[in-house]
Amino acid sequence: MIIDCDPGHDDALALLLGAGDPRLRLLGVTTVAGNQTLEKTTHNALKVLALAGVTGIPVAAGCDRPLVGELVVAANIHGVTGLDGPDVDVPVAEVAAVHAVELMRRLLADAAEPVTLIATGPLTNVALLLRRHPEVMPRIRRVVFMGGSTERGNTTPYGEFNIVTDPEAADIVLRSGLPTTMIGLNVTHQARATPEIIAEFRRMGSRLGAVCADLMTFFAGTYLREFGFPDPPVHDPVAVAAVIDASVVRTVAAPVAVELTGTHTRGATVVDLHHRTGRVANAVGVGLRVDSFWRLLMAAVRQLGGTSSHTSI
Amino acid sequence: MIIDCDPGHDDALALLLGAGDPRLRLLGVTTVAGNQTLEKTTHNALKVLALAGVTGIPVAAGCDRPLVGELVVAANIHGVTGLDGPDVDVPVAEVAAVHAVELMRRLLADAAEPVTLIATGPLTNVALLLRRHPEVMPRIRRVVFMGGSTERGNTTPYGEFNIVTDPEAADIVLRSGLPTTMIGLNVTHQARATPEIIAEFRRMGSRLGAVCADLMTFFAGTYLREFGFPDPPVHDPVAVAAVIDASVVRTVAAPVAVELTGTHTRGATVVDLHHRTGRVANAVGVGLRVDSFWRLLMAAVRQLGGTSSHTSI
Amino acid sequence: MIIDCDPGHDDALALLLGAGDPRLRLLGVTTVAGNQTLEKTTHNALKVLALAGVTGIPVAAGCDRPLVGELVVAANIHGVTGLDGPDVDVPVAEVAAVHAVELMRRLLADAAEPVTLIATGPLTNVALLLRRHPEVMPRIRRVVFMGGSTERGNTTPYGEFNIVTDPEAADIVLRSGLPTTMIGLNVTHQARATPEIIAEFRRMGSRLGAVCADLMTFFAGTYLREFGFPDPPVHDPVAVAAVIDASVVRTVAAPVAVELTGTHTRGATVVDLHHRTGRVANAVGVGLRVDSFWRLLMAAVRQLGGTSSHTSI
Amino acid sequence: MIIDCDPGHDDALALLLGAGDPRLRLLGVTTVAGNQTLEKTTHNALKVLALAGVTGIPVAAGCDRPLVGELVVAANIHGVTGLDGPDVDVPVAEVAAVHAVELMRRLLADAAEPVTLIATGPLTNVALLLRRHPEVMPRIRRVVFMGGSTERGNTTPYGEFNIVTDPEAADIVLRSGLPTTMIGLNVTHQARATPEIIAEFRRMGSRLGAVCADLMTFFAGTYLREFGFPDPPVHDPVAVAAVIDASVVRTVAAPVAVELTGTHTRGATVVDLHHRTGRVANAVGVGLRVDSFWRLLMAAVRQLGGTSSHTSI
Ligand SMILES: [Ca+2]
Ligand SMILES: [Ca+2]
Ligand SMILES: [Ca+2]
Ligand SMILES: [Ca+2]
Repeated sequence: MIIDCDPGHDDALALLLGAGDPRLRLLGVTTVAGNQTLEKTTHNALKVLALAGVTGIPVAAGCDRPLVGELVVAANIHGVTGLDGPDVDVPVAEVAAVHAVELMRRLLADAAEPVTLIATGPLTNVALLLRRHPEVMPRIRRVVFMGGSTERGNTTPYGEFNIVTDPEAADIVLRSGLPTTMIGLNVTHQARATPEIIAEFRRMGSRLGAVCADLMTFFAGTYLREFGFPDPPVHDPVAVAAVIDASVVRTVAAPVAVELTGTHTRGATVVDLHHRTGRVANAVGVGLRVDSFWRLLMAAVRQLGGTSSHTSI
Repeated sequence: MIIDCDPGHDDALALLLGAGDPRLRLLGVTTVAGNQTLEKTTHNALKVLALAGVTGIPVAAGCDRPLVGELVVAANIHGVTGLDGPDVDVPVAEVAAVHAVELMRRLLADAAEPVTLIATGPLTNVALLLRRHPEVMPRIRRVVFMGGSTERGNTTPYGEFNIVTDPEAADIVLRSGLPTTMIGLNVTHQARATPEIIAEFRRMGSRLGAVCADLMTFFAGTYLREFGFPDPPVHDPVAVAAVIDASVVRTVAAPVAVELTGTHTRGATVVDLHHRTGRVANAVGVGLRVDSFWRLLMAAVRQLGGTSSHTSI
Repeated sequence: MIIDCDPGHDDALALLLGAGDPRLRLLGVTTVAGNQTLEKTTHNALKVLALAGVTGIPVAAGCDRPLVGELVVAANIHGVTGLDGPDVDVPVAEVAAVHAVELMRRLLADAAEPVTLIATGPLTNVALLLRRHPEVMPRIRRVVFMGGSTERGNTTPYGEFNIVTDPEAADIVLRSGLPTTMIGLNVTHQARATPEIIAEFRRMGSRLGAVCADLMTFFAGTYLREFGFPDPPVHDPVAVAAVIDASVVRTVAAPVAVELTGTHTRGATVVDLHHRTGRVANAVGVGLRVDSFWRLLMAAVRQLGGTSSHTSI
Repeated sequence: MIIDCDPGHDDALALLLGAGDPRLRLLGVTTVAGNQTLEKTTHNALKVLALAGVTGIPVAAGCDRPLVGELVVAANIHGVTGLDGPDVDVPVAEVAAVHAVELMRRLLADAAEPVTLIATGPLTNVALLLRRHPEVMPRIRRVVFMGGSTERGNTTPYGEFNIVTDPEAADIVLRSGLPTTMIGLNVTHQARATPEIIAEFRRMGSRLGAVCADLMTFFAGTYLREFGFPDPPVHDPVAVAAVIDASVVRTVAAPVAVELTGTHTRGATVVDLHHRTGRVANAVGVGLRVDSFWRLLMAAVRQLGGTSSHTSI
């Protein structure tokens, strides 16, 4: 499994779940501009892995801007670093010497079996991979991405951040013929980091648990200010959870079109739940088993945090 | 108060509420192509008033097509007559000799005080009135329309029928500077004609009550088939209820843009609940006191049905 | 014949040609916002007729803004009055007490034969007429309008002023099923008011000739400044000339679509000269007999100017 | 200099000019889907070089479809092979083992000086290069592409084939910040393969000359049938000529926007000749020294054909 991400507070949790769950094998991490600039999201990915004590996973930086549109980062949500909150410093590994697209290509080519791509940022890297290296498409088992919504958006009334940032990339992926699973806001808004969740992170006693608590505390502040949400949704790890255990996210088959030409709706994922358009269906998440999700995430963080926790005591 | 409508099962209930509630004074009814052709919606408006024993209310036919787009009627929902279901015939009054826009103009010009326009069909007539007779705009207290949604649509994933049918008209009305109140699917989907509601119509013992029960029984069938809804929502009377008693529909101030250029989203009402666009706000319904709504509607139908009920027994 | 216009320097010449040519019968003049505000274009229409000594022709004011878009006047081309240049004052007639759309309706209803509509401004009034009074459509012989282009535009790279000002109105007219003739920039750019033309106006010796010369002198200045044209094109009278004498403007049958959704091309007239789209064809002007055109125009101005010229000497 | 192309009859002449002119150094040829499928355009590029006796130039195949839209080949213009006409077979070299984007990257990275990219097909490969390898942008001297128009198009009323095929790619290139020169239909329609031109090719006496004559004879037939043109324009070599001798194509600085959202104008190059939009200017061809152009092209074909001519006698 490969995670393509733009950390980002919830990407951080997605990386931890991807690295910490025993059923997954994280082959590599690629980064893309989105929540913050490429330089920052790449550093953040390296930092999250370092904090988790995860080594040996290659991290490659990808596109520093969307395919067609302009990059608008989400500093209002994720802060100036893209991962504001925890006051912690850690030595990070070197970034891979290859582009994200090339790392994905190699990992796909070298894998014994088709690989799942999990994307938790704008789909720029994935779309570029499909156009630049179509020969690897049979090596991709499916693309599971956090993005879009069957309902309202978070960046525009009907637009979610990852898709609004690069609508053309999303369109390429969704129409590629690959199996895709969309984990949209309609699902992820059920995964809220309540005070109880934050307290549970802190109670772990590990540095990683404390970092997660601090991340979610910062995230709670920006979501309250920007959206009036009492508890912030943690979008990205839901996509990872859906890969770990298919029963955690209920999906339906429905065509997803990306609006590319709307004046007020560019980047909206237009999900045809009633099959009126006759387009090819994608898999679309529609329900979340909230308790199961948090159980998976907590277990992964606890597992990763174990060692460092012991050393810190 | 003037009702501009395209009956339509739920328009029928809107007319009954508008004609039967003692706090409203129904000055006239105008019709527009929408759920069915203009000829049919006009006949249906006359028929509903006749069934309710309402006389002396002028009914004028308006536009037989949208301003710019093509008319696509909703025969799948409302049947071939636009008011399928009840097997009842009734002599109807003559349609007014003037166009709907001219009737609205005269009623507005002659009224002692500004008048509320309630629109429960595509906004073609209202938009045409504003462009053709801008001098009457100060005579309009406000425009309360059933249409749009803050969430998903019913005709396309993000498009509601009335607005999708004539997006340019909706754009004209929403940007006119008049006070507007949008009663969208997000509100009207709470007003469901459950079996209990249908039974209550039938228990009234009046012909009108039986007609309402028959209308809702047909409507339930098409909604179940088309949308899988157990109980059909009765959209249009919610707009009338909102005029009768402001406490029935909770509204917020939020800019509403109509998507005119989207490939997959044309006709979507893009409601900026978080005030990010800086556009001028409209009033947007967000909540419904369901019990209060049905109380109003049942009282109106009971009141109108009284006479004919007695004569029919 | 009815002229719907937004004077405007070239509208002034169109009115003079329409009023002065012996083969035409000018039934009425209607005005629309475009080159300047409705108040100014209406005054200018009245002024041109007064200067020409034309009496008894009703002039009615119509729409003060486009159907959907916002009005942006062309003060850079036509000056602050919409008819800058001549320093002449004249008492003008009263504007008709009815709206332009109502005047057109009456003139159409009262005419013994179908009437040609000549539109030399944005098509707002004509579109409104078609939507508000579809019953008069059989009374319209055809709509000949100055607007659009088979080539480049003058307001945006592919957009001509009249169509860019109200693209939806143009779309309504072009898809109405009425015979339409488009006289676009590709034709009118051949009708240039050269210094010889201006001199010919002045040599007439009439006040009207002098006014025309002053109008064209001002127009030459703005066209030189805005477009670098040595001699300004007089667009609008070409539409009138095409009605007087079909041999003056060569036309072909070709579908004309109005671009309503383009980011950079809104209001472009997309003329399918090779019949690839399969849409219904409109008549499209493609060639001008320049000498014949000017002969018609000069004769009309000379004819109208006769009396006042005599009195002024 | 690198030529990225989709041969195509006029691409063939572009390759011959690029390979045969003594002032140019052709580093490599890359191919893209466009006039025909990638497989065919790649074979055609190899075939043209083989016919010209050009060896040692790497030819790499690139994208087999546009970035976002669907591929629609121009078999109506270029025939089923993409290079219909000459009845000639020739052994061709092997295609390079790398993707077009990778070949371009290497050639750019290895060159002593910045390299000019000449694109005569859809801009898919070039756009992909810029997004995948932004680090090589300083190695690109400029991009000279055949595509677009300041006037009408050839595929849609305002759309030229190369840009209509991949509008997003053109948008990426034009807004990349690189110096770009657009050689549009407005220029290339002046380069017509008249019977005299075709005769001149044939008079050369070489097999290559005969092939060129046969290509142009076929091309003349399709242009006559599709566009009613007496003599077919040879678009692509004009872009090469503009690189050889700047005096052959007169250019102006003007912003070029690509229409991405128009219903009837998608892929139009919207050239702001009057600098009204305030966008960054590109170089845009506006005039052609026709004689100079043909002299360059004839000299190149004569030069390349020399050897094979001798052997065939
Ligand atoms: Ca993310
Ligand atoms: Ca209705
Ligand atoms: Ca005009
Ligand atoms: Ca080509």
